[in-house]
Amino acid sequence: MTRFRVAVEIVPRRGLLDPQGKAVSDALHTLGFSTVSDVRVGRHLVLDTDAADADAARAEVQRMCEQLLANPVTEDFHIGSAERA
Amino acid sequence: MTRFRVAVEIVPRRGLLDPQGKAVSDALHTLGFSTVSDVRVGRHLVLDTDAADADAARAEVQRMCEQLLANPVTEDFHIGSAERA
Repeated sequence: MTRFRVAVEIVPRRGLLDPQGKAVSDALHTLGFSTVSDVRVGRHLVLDTDAADADAARAEVQRMCEQLLANPVTEDFHIGSAERA
Repeated sequence: MTRFRVAVEIVPRRGLLDPQGKAVSDALHTLGFSTVSDVRVGRHLVLDTDAADADAARAEVQRMCEQLLANPVTEDFHIGSAERA
């Protein structure tokens, strides 16, 4: 078993309201960043996990996303590459 | 001016406590994912902004991170590539 570090991005689905993104966008406008038109705020997770190889590590993280990390109704997730930790 | 989409990852500094990551790690263990050894939870932002070119868009997002989006004491940020939105 080797330790792998896998990054996951979890973002609200396009088309769904993202109140946190709206709040950030408004705050940026208040600070003078008038060129910003849209902000989406999601989560970025970095997981260290032991697995036989990189594909197994990513498959395990996929199961974690489906069971706990992401909300399948409102969020999409993207699993990055698995690097040796 | 062209519209660019820039992704930013904001993560707690290594070495600082990450209570949210600890909570996720504990929940994963409870669900049977015993191979997970460490979890860090950060934010993933996607910003649409108008700029003359991709470098200008990334520079503007860097200023946003420094002024509002990231906490310089506790967080590191990484700005991804700027894609035409």
